[in-house]
Amino acid sequence: MKINGIAGGVTAARGFKAACCAAGIKYQGRTDMAMLYSDTPCAVAGTFTTNVVKAAPVVWDARIVREVKTAQAVVVNAGIANAATGSAGMSMCEQTAAHAGQALGIPAEYVLLGSTGVIGPSLPIDRINGGVTAMAGALSDTLEAGTAASRAIMTTDTVNKECAVAFELLAADGQGAVRVTLGGMSKGSGMIHPNMCTMLGYITTDCAIDQALMQKALKDVVRDTFNMISVDGDTSTNDTLLLLANARAGNRPIAEQDESYALFCEALFTVCRALAIKMAGDGEGATRLMQMRVYNADTKENARKLARSVISSSLVKAMVFGRDANCGRILCAMGYAGVDFDPAVIELYLVGESETLCFYRDGRVQAFDEDRALAILSEKQVCFECDMRMGREEATAWGCDLTYDYVKINGDYRS
Amino acid sequence: MKINGIAGGVTAARGFKAACCAAGIKYQGRTDMAMLYSDTPCAVAGTFTTNVVKAAPVVWDARIVREVKTAQAVVVNAGIANAATGSAGMSMCEQTAAHAGQALGIPAEYVLLGSTGVIGPSLPIDRINGGVTAMAGALSDTLEAGTAASRAIMTTDTVNKECAVAFELLAADGQGAVRVTLGGMSKGSGMIHPNMCTMLGYITTDCAIDQALMQKALKDVVRDTFNMISVDGDTSTNDTLLLLANARAGNRPIAEQDESYALFCEALFTVCRALAIKMAGDGEGATRLMQMRVYNADTKENARKLARSVISSSLVKAMVFGRDANCGRILCAMGYAGVDFDPAVIELYLVGESETLCFYRDGRVQAFDEDRALAILSEKQVCFECDMRMGREEATAWGCDLTYDYVKINGDYRS
Repeated sequence: MKINGIAGGVTAARGFKAACCAAGIKYQGRTDMAMLYSDTPCAVAGTFTTNVVKAAPVVWDARIVREVKTAQAVVVNAGIANAATGSAGMSMCEQTAAHAGQALGIPAEYVLLGSTGVIGPSLPIDRINGGVTAMAGALSDTLEAGTAASRAIMTTDTVNKECAVAFELLAADGQGAVRVTLGGMSKGSGMIHPNMCTMLGYITTDCAIDQALMQKALKDVVRDTFNMISVDGDTSTNDTLLLLANARAGNRPIAEQDESYALFCEALFTVCRALAIKMAGDGEGATRLMQMRVYNADTKENARKLARSVISSSLVKAMVFGRDANCGRILCAMGYAGVDFDPAVIELYLVGESETLCFYRDGRVQAFDEDRALAILSEKQVCFECDMRMGREEATAWGCDLTYDYVKINGDYRS
Repeated sequence: MKINGIAGGVTAARGFKAACCAAGIKYQGRTDMAMLYSDTPCAVAGTFTTNVVKAAPVVWDARIVREVKTAQAVVVNAGIANAATGSAGMSMCEQTAAHAGQALGIPAEYVLLGSTGVIGPSLPIDRINGGVTAMAGALSDTLEAGTAASRAIMTTDTVNKECAVAFELLAADGQGAVRVTLGGMSKGSGMIHPNMCTMLGYITTDCAIDQALMQKALKDVVRDTFNMISVDGDTSTNDTLLLLANARAGNRPIAEQDESYALFCEALFTVCRALAIKMAGDGEGATRLMQMRVYNADTKENARKLARSVISSSLVKAMVFGRDANCGRILCAMGYAGVDFDPAVIELYLVGESETLCFYRDGRVQAFDEDRALAILSEKQVCFECDMRMGREEATAWGCDLTYDYVKINGDYRS
């Protein structure tokens, strides 16, 4: 293994600190703001929601990624999304960044912002600024500080999400290898649907890498990780995924698409996939993670579309919740994915930990043992696979079941 | 009013009969098969699912509409969809049509078929044929027979759906006007999502009209009626909408896109819209009909996309169920509809029976009275409107709320 999983999240890489606080923005009795900070300026890459309606912090961050390309801090709040807030919302961003820049002694345009929560209300700027001041004085590079930050940005999430990996790259002086670390955190549980990235996610690394290559790596990796999950088909106004690299590992800077770049991409993929799967499994109200793998497809994009269509289907999701092997629904969801294929040729499988059942082949639903199907559908992770028998491309998507609790959570989210 | 609503459904028009029976295909203690029959051959038009996976009766009917263009009977069963049944499923269609043709004394290729229910299982051909024989001997042209047929094709539907209208056209001999009738029935409650037509629907008319014009009228009308509803985003394998015209009204045959054709289209639109709204309101587990009207859009297709995106959103649907005026979700769902617009310009309204609340304007969610919003959201029909302020096109879509019962029904549909 060239990529090794390690403990921690956003503070795993050298030179990154985190803090959080309870600013009382909406939630009571819990932390609701987080700050990330790098001792030195970072190259920054980002991907953002494709929703036409973009929250103010999305507009703010996208400009920094596009024009400034450098950042040193991130300020995130949970509870209020600062979306559909007009020019007042942008003003909140300017004030928050100015205040954080002052507190941290860095330019305001090096401060990235993230908000998540209810669409519509205005941020209480006094509490936000109070939180920023408190966090600027409490930054820590411990793994615990990173974990605490990952908890502070949760909304309807039931577990925090973080992940870190380490790998080796050639040292800057060409003498041997140096250890490079890449870690991240994310939040997201509802309003999750594959389209660009669909949540808040922050990844930090001490790798030295060209900013344009970072952006390319992030865009490529997102396509098969965060863009392959869905909880409810709703693409949020606030989706933001940021990657900050401070070059503190001392590796020879990655400047072209060579072997080092490939290794960096693999590390990024590992972290993004782990965070994405955690988000899908923690979908609002979910009791089970659902995985759909499509292989031997004619094109990669078709494999992605087919896999996403299945994990996005309300009927498949309800069936997984009910542990009801009504597997024709999987075939149906593939059928409306917008991909042309021959239903007489494909084969569908229900994949358990210890056995695999074929439930569709030769153009018809197969007879299978209901008890064995029930046993597989009762596992913590429910996996479906489709052999398209058309080519050699594959893709995997992750979702969760549709439950009473999803309806409950979203029928009364604001209170 | 040139188009008058009248009582009845598929037997309202002259020369059409219906029957139903309890064939015991899946359900017990209720009727589960229906037959429609015209004393004379009918011109037939149809639209079918766009799902790549098409049920056997869809393949059967599509061939008749495309090649034979004439039909005289329809045989429908509820309980089993005859989808994903391979060549055996097509054989079932051939056997059923042959048997019905014999029982009715018409060619087998004049017999249209429809199936709805679980995907996968095979039809019990002996019970189907027994049902066909029974129904062929029990055909009746009463309104009650049409109503009974509309009940027999229900699955998870909680109410039957039928509608009929009458209008006047110039008589064939040019001497005065004749009364033309058009009526229909439909079923559909789950696996309902705008894409071609998304359910089973049968419309009969005694109008004399060219078959190609019937097909055009049906295609055009479907776009703003059945294609504008969604219950759960799942496009079925069995969607079928058929229009049969037996020319018994004695009108001068409609042979071009003239005033008579326009009147016919309006009548067809009236019936299709009424049936579509009934289906949306009777969505699986639904407690409320939801309507989204988008006006002053730049193009008709964009208006449709925006309206459909809102009524398809799980978060909007859950919000309507919870009567929670979390209206930012409506804006969010418009944002990912795949339509470009300026969020700073549009205006969003919650429209009640006696008052209208603006909840979004000037790029931000507006303050509104929560009690008044709750009162509007508690009405039997919840209506949202968006003024796009871009052009003059409009579209309306219909859906329903997402409830615990939707999850319950679909977590355990087969048992």
